[in-house]
Amino acid sequence: MISVKKALSIIEKVKYSVGTEYIASNKALGRIVSENVLSKTDNPPFNMSAMDGYAVCNKPHNKVYKVVGEIFAGHSMSKKKILKNEAVRVYTGSKLPQGTTTVIIQEKTKVLDNNFILHTNNSLKIGEYVRKKGLDFKKNKTIIKSGKILNARDIALLISANCKNIKVFKKPKVSILSTGDELIFSEKIKKDSNIFASSLYMLEALIHLSFSECIHKTIVKDNKNKIKKALREAIKSDIIITTGGVSVGKKDLIRSSLIELGFEEKFWKITMRPGKPLLFGILKSKPVFSLPGNPVSTYVCFLIFIFPFLIKILNLKNNYYKKIAKLANNTKLASKRESYLRGFFYKQNNENFVKCLSNQDSSLLNMLATSNCLIKIPSNKKYSKNMFVEIILFPPLF
Amino acid sequence: MISVKKALSIIEKVKYSVGTEYIASNKALGRIVSENVLSKTDNPPFNMSAMDGYAVCNKPHNKVYKVVGEIFAGHSMSKKKILKNEAVRVYTGSKLPQGTTTVIIQEKTKVLDNNFILHTNNSLKIGEYVRKKGLDFKKNKTIIKSGKILNARDIALLISANCKNIKVFKKPKVSILSTGDELIFSEKIKKDSNIFASSLYMLEALIHLSFSECIHKTIVKDNKNKIKKALREAIKSDIIITTGGVSVGKKDLIRSSLIELGFEEKFWKITMRPGKPLLFGILKSKPVFSLPGNPVSTYVCFLIFIFPFLIKILNLKNNYYKKIAKLANNTKLASKRESYLRGFFYKQNNENFVKCLSNQDSSLLNMLATSNCLIKIPSNKKYSKNMFVEIILFPPLF
Repeated sequence: MISVKKALSIIEKVKYSVGTEYIASNKALGRIVSENVLSKTDNPPFNMSAMDGYAVCNKPHNKVYKVVGEIFAGHSMSKKKILKNEAVRVYTGSKLPQGTTTVIIQEKTKVLDNNFILHTNNSLKIGEYVRKKGLDFKKNKTIIKSGKILNARDIALLISANCKNIKVFKKPKVSILSTGDELIFSEKIKKDSNIFASSLYMLEALIHLSFSECIHKTIVKDNKNKIKKALREAIKSDIIITTGGVSVGKKDLIRSSLIELGFEEKFWKITMRPGKPLLFGILKSKPVFSLPGNPVSTYVCFLIFIFPFLIKILNLKNNYYKKIAKLANNTKLASKRESYLRGFFYKQNNENFVKCLSNQDSSLLNMLATSNCLIKIPSNKKYSKNMFVEIILFPPLF
Repeated sequence: MISVKKALSIIEKVKYSVGTEYIASNKALGRIVSENVLSKTDNPPFNMSAMDGYAVCNKPHNKVYKVVGEIFAGHSMSKKKILKNEAVRVYTGSKLPQGTTTVIIQEKTKVLDNNFILHTNNSLKIGEYVRKKGLDFKKNKTIIKSGKILNARDIALLISANCKNIKVFKKPKVSILSTGDELIFSEKIKKDSNIFASSLYMLEALIHLSFSECIHKTIVKDNKNKIKKALREAIKSDIIITTGGVSVGKKDLIRSSLIELGFEEKFWKITMRPGKPLLFGILKSKPVFSLPGNPVSTYVCFLIFIFPFLIKILNLKNNYYKKIAKLANNTKLASKRESYLRGFFYKQNNENFVKCLSNQDSSLLNMLATSNCLIKIPSNKKYSKNMFVEIILFPPLF
């Protein structure tokens, strides 16, 4: 048995790379950029009118201009030179014709006969109402830094920079094997002694929320040959998660199956509650996390061990979800093992509080769904009301 | 011209319902439950051993038991009655045989000859190491309340409760029409006067992040017939968003097109910066938001007006993203219109600060991508360093 801290440091040392891939920028929401992105164009790509008006050659002293053309947004003008007493009708987004530098907004003009306009304002400034080429960003500027999780605004930025494809980290591919003769898929009709494999679907969701994808999920009977067959198939993924069958009973066949397949065991059993039987190691170069079968234990082990591992191999930081809070009630008796209790975090008068939920049995999904954090209680300590504890808030939709 | 507040109250009054649908619980991550969900089974569905051991009939005084059978998890025993001096070998998750109430864990037994075991601990308590039927929740208990956004734990809860399908709000279906002769799709090769329709993809992402789906996105030329045709097609969706062409210029054809199609205008133009030309109304019973074409204006209008509308029709609350923060620098000159400036929110010594970004031109996507909030500045007010302002933090991945 090793401590949670020791287990985390062992997992942390495992090097695994999922590699990178190019994807279309317009499909990249939530993906993680794996190298700095440089713009491929100036933005705006040309000098552009910011308003509806008249483009002129920057001769503020002319009060009357002859309108010699009109340019709509999306259109160009034949490359005729514009003279100093000439103006071109432009609109928001119009590309300014060569030689013009300034826009007189239409509100400051008066239309005369024969295509002439009168400029009714003396204070025309050079470059006014023009969005200059490159005002937003220049070509070859770093617009997105490596490691960024792309949001909706980033996608607009990438597209306006003509970055059609970008390099992102591949999503780690995860396989889940839930073992247990009692388990059935959620769509099956339940017979007497069956239990729905709820962990399977919970893990699938958690993997999806951890920038990864579940490529395979299956239920395996408590049979060594079947378990070994399923594990051999799972090696095609980057990471393997198993649930159940990892303790010391007659039907706990995960560990021996792994060992017979050449498993390099890194640790087994942790002084932790829930989650004690956790097994971790490498099978044919792929990290394997074998979690206890109870859904609450599965959840806690995912949050404490697998989530940080996925975050790490994607080069992300994992320090967002820890807080210190004041206990709103007493916790139960101390445990020899470090405990992760289901808690409910809330704020009162700008102070962090956490309530320890009443029943901490690791089979209680209802309590888990009611909670919004785990309270970390070090081994052999009893924590009472008003003491400060470390809590781990659940990431969004976890 | 109306105020932002007035505009919001007009939008708020529009009733629109997207209806509900049944979906498989295992596909329901992030969906919004539209009625309370009752469990369809007790959980555990039967009395279950919590450990590996021996199930007995709750006669603590017997010290020697005859082992008369073995039950693995997922299996049942023929309905033989277990006598008070008999025991049945069970494992974690095994269904307890009829008549048994208590499990002696294997660590507290000694195996004797001829299938007898000796119980080595006197302090056996009735019901010990048994997870009683319904301990987690009873049948017909409300396990999820209406309005909840389903997380990974909820999915496990639903599946363990044998709720295979649940009633959720349909995703509002949104169509986006970006107008402008200059606009091209992101995968196209850019010609001289073209601009990529970055707003189109940004809006698609924002809609997805707002519990909704973009069912159609298109670019329409500045041509009234084409705009009207596109609007007529968009009526199949729940909500229509247009960008561009909504101001007063020669090529601003959205409003007149809508009116010719029988648009019921609710308001046009807001004393707001950016976002002034915003147009809102109802076309053939469908809400239409016509936003300015500039990507920053589009973004601000989505966040301030469309996001709350989507949240409201899905019966969710929208009060998560507002905060008060101290200005870390001076803002620019006061505007007659209420301003929504791009800001950067951070915490220092547990205090909320916001820095107003230097260039607030509404064409600057780079500044928008750098920001993490909007700073709301009331009209005709100048805010200086150290004053408190209201900020709107961007929701996750916005």
